[in-house]
Amino acid sequence: MNVAAVLVEALPYIREFRGQIVVVKYGGNALAGSSTLDSFAADVVLLHTVGIRAVVVHGGGPQIGELMERLGKVPEFVDGLRVTDAETLDIARMVLVGKVNRDIVAAINVHGPLAVGVSGEDAGMITASPLDPALGFVGEVGAVNPDILRRLLAEELVPVVATIGSDRRGQSYNINADTVAGAVAEALGAAKLVYLTDVEGIRARRGDPASLVHAATPDDLDRLVAGGAIAGGMIPKVASCVRAVRNGVSRAHILDGRAEHALLVELFTRQGVGTMVAPA
Amino acid sequence: MNVAAVLVEALPYIREFRGQIVVVKYGGNALAGSSTLDSFAADVVLLHTVGIRAVVVHGGGPQIGELMERLGKVPEFVDGLRVTDAETLDIARMVLVGKVNRDIVAAINVHGPLAVGVSGEDAGMITASPLDPALGFVGEVGAVNPDILRRLLAEELVPVVATIGSDRRGQSYNINADTVAGAVAEALGAAKLVYLTDVEGIRARRGDPASLVHAATPDDLDRLVAGGAIAGGMIPKVASCVRAVRNGVSRAHILDGRAEHALLVELFTRQGVGTMVAPA
Amino acid sequence: MNVAAVLVEALPYIREFRGQIVVVKYGGNALAGSSTLDSFAADVVLLHTVGIRAVVVHGGGPQIGELMERLGKVPEFVDGLRVTDAETLDIARMVLVGKVNRDIVAAINVHGPLAVGVSGEDAGMITASPLDPALGFVGEVGAVNPDILRRLLAEELVPVVATIGSDRRGQSYNINADTVAGAVAEALGAAKLVYLTDVEGIRARRGDPASLVHAATPDDLDRLVAGGAIAGGMIPKVASCVRAVRNGVSRAHILDGRAEHALLVELFTRQGVGTMVAPA
Amino acid sequence: MNVAAVLVEALPYIREFRGQIVVVKYGGNALAGSSTLDSFAADVVLLHTVGIRAVVVHGGGPQIGELMERLGKVPEFVDGLRVTDAETLDIARMVLVGKVNRDIVAAINVHGPLAVGVSGEDAGMITASPLDPALGFVGEVGAVNPDILRRLLAEELVPVVATIGSDRRGQSYNINADTVAGAVAEALGAAKLVYLTDVEGIRARRGDPASLVHAATPDDLDRLVAGGAIAGGMIPKVASCVRAVRNGVSRAHILDGRAEHALLVELFTRQGVGTMVAPA
Amino acid sequence: MNVAAVLVEALPYIREFRGQIVVVKYGGNALAGSSTLDSFAADVVLLHTVGIRAVVVHGGGPQIGELMERLGKVPEFVDGLRVTDAETLDIARMVLVGKVNRDIVAAINVHGPLAVGVSGEDAGMITASPLDPALGFVGEVGAVNPDILRRLLAEELVPVVATIGSDRRGQSYNINADTVAGAVAEALGAAKLVYLTDVEGIRARRGDPASLVHAATPDDLDRLVAGGAIAGGMIPKVASCVRAVRNGVSRAHILDGRAEHALLVELFTRQGVGTMVAPA
Amino acid sequence: MNVAAVLVEALPYIREFRGQIVVVKYGGNALAGSSTLDSFAADVVLLHTVGIRAVVVHGGGPQIGELMERLGKVPEFVDGLRVTDAETLDIARMVLVGKVNRDIVAAINVHGPLAVGVSGEDAGMITASPLDPALGFVGEVGAVNPDILRRLLAEELVPVVATIGSDRRGQSYNINADTVAGAVAEALGAAKLVYLTDVEGIRARRGDPASLVHAATPDDLDRLVAGGAIAGGMIPKVASCVRAVRNGVSRAHILDGRAEHALLVELFTRQGVGTMVAPA
Repeated sequence: MNVAAVLVEALPYIREFRGQIVVVKYGGNALAGSSTLDSFAADVVLLHTVGIRAVVVHGGGPQIGELMERLGKVPEFVDGLRVTDAETLDIARMVLVGKVNRDIVAAINVHGPLAVGVSGEDAGMITASPLDPALGFVGEVGAVNPDILRRLLAEELVPVVATIGSDRRGQSYNINADTVAGAVAEALGAAKLVYLTDVEGIRARRGDPASLVHAATPDDLDRLVAGGAIAGGMIPKVASCVRAVRNGVSRAHILDGRAEHALLVELFTRQGVGTMVAPA
Repeated sequence: MNVAAVLVEALPYIREFRGQIVVVKYGGNALAGSSTLDSFAADVVLLHTVGIRAVVVHGGGPQIGELMERLGKVPEFVDGLRVTDAETLDIARMVLVGKVNRDIVAAINVHGPLAVGVSGEDAGMITASPLDPALGFVGEVGAVNPDILRRLLAEELVPVVATIGSDRRGQSYNINADTVAGAVAEALGAAKLVYLTDVEGIRARRGDPASLVHAATPDDLDRLVAGGAIAGGMIPKVASCVRAVRNGVSRAHILDGRAEHALLVELFTRQGVGTMVAPA
Repeated sequence: MNVAAVLVEALPYIREFRGQIVVVKYGGNALAGSSTLDSFAADVVLLHTVGIRAVVVHGGGPQIGELMERLGKVPEFVDGLRVTDAETLDIARMVLVGKVNRDIVAAINVHGPLAVGVSGEDAGMITASPLDPALGFVGEVGAVNPDILRRLLAEELVPVVATIGSDRRGQSYNINADTVAGAVAEALGAAKLVYLTDVEGIRARRGDPASLVHAATPDDLDRLVAGGAIAGGMIPKVASCVRAVRNGVSRAHILDGRAEHALLVELFTRQGVGTMVAPA
Repeated sequence: MNVAAVLVEALPYIREFRGQIVVVKYGGNALAGSSTLDSFAADVVLLHTVGIRAVVVHGGGPQIGELMERLGKVPEFVDGLRVTDAETLDIARMVLVGKVNRDIVAAINVHGPLAVGVSGEDAGMITASPLDPALGFVGEVGAVNPDILRRLLAEELVPVVATIGSDRRGQSYNINADTVAGAVAEALGAAKLVYLTDVEGIRARRGDPASLVHAATPDDLDRLVAGGAIAGGMIPKVASCVRAVRNGVSRAHILDGRAEHALLVELFTRQGVGTMVAPA
Repeated sequence: MNVAAVLVEALPYIREFRGQIVVVKYGGNALAGSSTLDSFAADVVLLHTVGIRAVVVHGGGPQIGELMERLGKVPEFVDGLRVTDAETLDIARMVLVGKVNRDIVAAINVHGPLAVGVSGEDAGMITASPLDPALGFVGEVGAVNPDILRRLLAEELVPVVATIGSDRRGQSYNINADTVAGAVAEALGAAKLVYLTDVEGIRARRGDPASLVHAATPDDLDRLVAGGAIAGGMIPKVASCVRAVRNGVSRAHILDGRAEHALLVELFTRQGVGTMVAPA
Repeated sequence: MNVAAVLVEALPYIREFRGQIVVVKYGGNALAGSSTLDSFAADVVLLHTVGIRAVVVHGGGPQIGELMERLGKVPEFVDGLRVTDAETLDIARMVLVGKVNRDIVAAINVHGPLAVGVSGEDAGMITASPLDPALGFVGEVGAVNPDILRRLLAEELVPVVATIGSDRRGQSYNINADTVAGAVAEALGAAKLVYLTDVEGIRARRGDPASLVHAATPDDLDRLVAGGAIAGGMIPKVASCVRAVRNGVSRAHILDGRAEHALLVELFTRQGVGTMVAPA
């Protein structure tokens, strides 16, 4: 495609998304290689440049595990979820808010004073309650009050969200970041919710790269989950996409964050990458 | 260049020019082929789409000549300038305001209700006086009051300017469109002044396509004019570029309007087309 | 009436009409004598002076006929309406937009930079469709989008409207100016619609000056038309008055534009001139 | 002059004074006949109608004298100024604020809820100090803080000012109303200061009606005062006119308030009534 | 209570009442001792200091009686209400507007230019009609137009209201100040209506200080009135409280204005003084 | 002091500080006892209640030391300053941003969604450079960009600042919290800078409680430091007070944070607690 053709195709999208909110979930796994973080940060800044109001939501599972290990703390899991006692919560909070969040903020702010780290506890953004008493301080999202995000977006800043919530008495909880990303997108009425992962997208048949699903409705995805085609860590992402689209988010996407500038190509060209979820 | 690379390069320019004023002179010659007019109109609409405030200034020499001929009026020239008696002025005004201007407005408005035709007489925009008594109602620009243009731009409309001016007593004058384009760009403090012509740009040596000048300062152009390298209809364009850049317009360009989407490529890529005039 | 009495009577009207929209139809016939045009322009400026938002709508039949004749084009009529082929449309557009409109704008702007010429094509103001296939490019009004007029009025400018409309594909049409004046008044929710003509008003009996109607309801006028008392060029004026008043315009007037300052006397004194149309 | 001519002459004045401040001094003598008060109130309302921001300042000498007499209080004068002990001040304040001011407010408000009575004590408007210890609580104007007047004018209300001032400790003083009118006009940067009196204007020769001065500069008036042509109660009026014009008020007028609608005729016609004071 | 405890208790009240309207009825009796007036004025200024929008309404019965006596006018009463002929009205108006109102304004303005005296006639604030033909110009409140009060409050001024009303023809009436205070509080949607009296509050049994009622609903008070426990001048106060609370005023209070800073203690502490009326 | 007297004294201070910025440095030592943290949080919320714009700046030395110990990291000091290698910085950042900051935010937000944690890296707030190469990533303040704080304050939020800064390349530094508090107060033009410590204030003679300094100028403090009366951890506090007051902060205070509601008593009463620093 020649230069003029790319521009003629991109300009209307640039106009369409101007002023729109795009929530991007950036995974803890992706943070391993710093070149990817830099490339991701550059893309976020370019979106901001043309007036898109971007919100970054991140996790940090591998980094939490690492500090626990250093502190000689043995992780315990129930049904694949980490049991979180008070000390583990303290460690998770320090890592998410005080390390992973900081690294993303720093990578963006190399381009200018744009990013501001926030945690779900700030200004009462995420109200949480225990997901399961057996899991301790693992939370589920009760409500998202997006006021602080709207205020930062109104000031042309980029919020970077660590997924700690709290209850009315000030007790904190660690919450699954995929779930928070969906709930935040819903609460903000985002135009797009994008999961940057380390897979190409959703497959209709496990292990079959040729079965990549390019577009799906929430009902399609329900069927794939029910049929067992979707499993493991992909389940909360898919559930969040389904729920967000059913609750007013226009489009949700599961993309391969390892591809260069995947965000830009997804937003500004007609050709899709990964899997798009849209209402029927 | 791949899609992502074009986007990475274009997005900062799109931000830079957002809200900026770009004055485009579209020549009467270019209007012959209607496919070019449609392509030009599409480009103007795309600029508008991403927030550039575009002003179109046009001439119409060939079309004036054609109606004069049909009315059996013999054109008379002094030093290459048309002698303009009252009847000729009436014809020129009808053609510029009532035909050429209308055709450009109509071509843009196929894309949406954006364009508004204005003449230099509207709201006292262009104050004119006789250029030379021997030429009759050929005017020179006394002052440009850009209020009406600013008002239309503030309403997100695209002014299309016919280059008739008037004096305090209401007498109209026909004015060279290249000169008006420059004066309008100056009065608006435009970021760019672009001449869409039917040549590739300025040549350092007449007749030598290899001598195309990619970038020049006002002083460079003064020397080329003094040395005779620039002649004929290119002189008012060059003089207007020089004057506009010396009076605060950031960049002036002489482009080949016959190239597809020349305006977009000029504005949104690092590579230049035609000749760029910038302060030393 | 002494000076103080005129003032005591006029001041409340001046307040009442401040900020109100008054649409004035100025006929092509009236343009013949330039002293009348100057007097009309002075009145429009005085209305503007005291805060009335005036819109001028004009025709130009005689002037179109004159240019056609000079170009050796033989006019053809069907039921009194001019058959308009592409060339005739081109001529009509040049005359209306490029000559008559210009002359009115110039006459007003002698008093200050107030008037701006607009055509129904500008910013998609008048959407038109063919009135009758046999008539070619004679249009009827589909819709009036008064945004551009409101914007100009908000900027304290006086729009002068040439009655060319266009369809979605950019095809232009020539439209009866009396009809356009009524449709514009309706679309703007004008307080008054005034036709400046060369007769004293409507007569209840053709040829009987003593039967001048001072005030009428839309139903009264329907009866006069049905009874044959109203005929010829008065019919579109009357039909437009009736329709405008039925659709929310407070008052419509048919005045003798040949009387000095007829507009001022009509607006600012208790005594009426010509025929007033008001709801029952 | 016919109706149209009056209108053509008046409309530009109506525009010129729109939004301007006009301070009118209405004398206590004039209040005797209530028909004059009604006519005066109607004029003030008409000025307000066409956007003039009117401020009325009034005195009340005869009315104060009357209540003193009823209370058996013997007035005492020094050099023509009333000696004002605490009881006299109390009486003056009751009459000015509680009677004369009320009567003017009521007369205006018959036309609509426009007038608001204020005294110089309200919101610290007039700071006063003793004029002469021998006179007791007769004050001279120290400073005028026009904020409360500006606020009422901004709300499209008509302030009616009683001329009581006060010092920092809350002590009240009775002040000459002619002087206050001039000081208020100065503080507001009024366009006009008008004294409605019971004489035709200033005479160059005492007792000679033929010597009425139509226009004068402050220097002219200084000379007339020095020469003895101006005397008695006219002196504070003339001194206030001179001072106000020297301090930025555009025009001051001394009119015969007994003439019907003198205010309107003065403001809205070319012909003057009474004496106009303007800078040289 | 120590300093910190007072502050911890007061700060939330200070926030709660910030921007709220509090109408305070200040009785004519209270004006006798000037030390009380000074203390009252200081309290009003402190309320204003922390953002409360205070409106003072006052009476002046004793002062009216005094001037009547001096003028040799014999007061006449019907059922305890003063028969008010034109002369008595004139006297009442002079005293209320020109004396009592002035004294309160002056006492407040010693602290800064805050207070502005208004009468119910200003800007048509209080529309009145005769209460009983036998009483002459004693009025009852028809309607309160609170615009002028809102405007003064918006300008951060303190209106001090004299309770004269007028009808459409400009006739004035003297109205019971307790009634006006309630009607003004209703019209403004005040948060509080406070009567500063010379008793401790309402008693459930006449003459029994131990029966002070601390809190009551409108129904409670209806019963006390019906049972005869409330009588005399307390009846209009109680009736106004009942009516105001039933029409949207949040709380009404009857306090002993002789206690130092009763207003402050009532507003900013948990402990009440006097009787509070609140909805059931 | 009785209730009314406290109120009369406090109200003018409450007005004076309304809308003013108060920067409070809360020490890491103070965080040990959680009852103190709760009391401190309650005071901050009360200040916010009456419109004071509070900014909290905190340290966390003891908490950093504790985690280092758990991770088996041996602290190293040069001249009393902690040598900070990359790993120590990571630990400090996690503790300050992810633990101490979170605890303060949570304690405030029990009262409502008011507090937002920010770090000096957010939106480029604190630009830092190495204090001394021998100390590693210990930073000194280069510049404070208070925009993000102003934005949060404008949204009626309470920023809680962790004192990590960063340079242009995104490298983070740990900075002394006393110094940051002063620099933030300067950059915001704060009305007050308050250090809540665990001493009563500054003593003129070390070890002599009777030598408590109630008020001092910057010059006084310079002399005390030069004379050796001030030493240890008090030096950066004193230096920051001196510098802040010399650069426009109106008042700086060193208070004993262990006293109940010390902040309220300091702000809202005439009596001081601790040491006040003010310009000579």
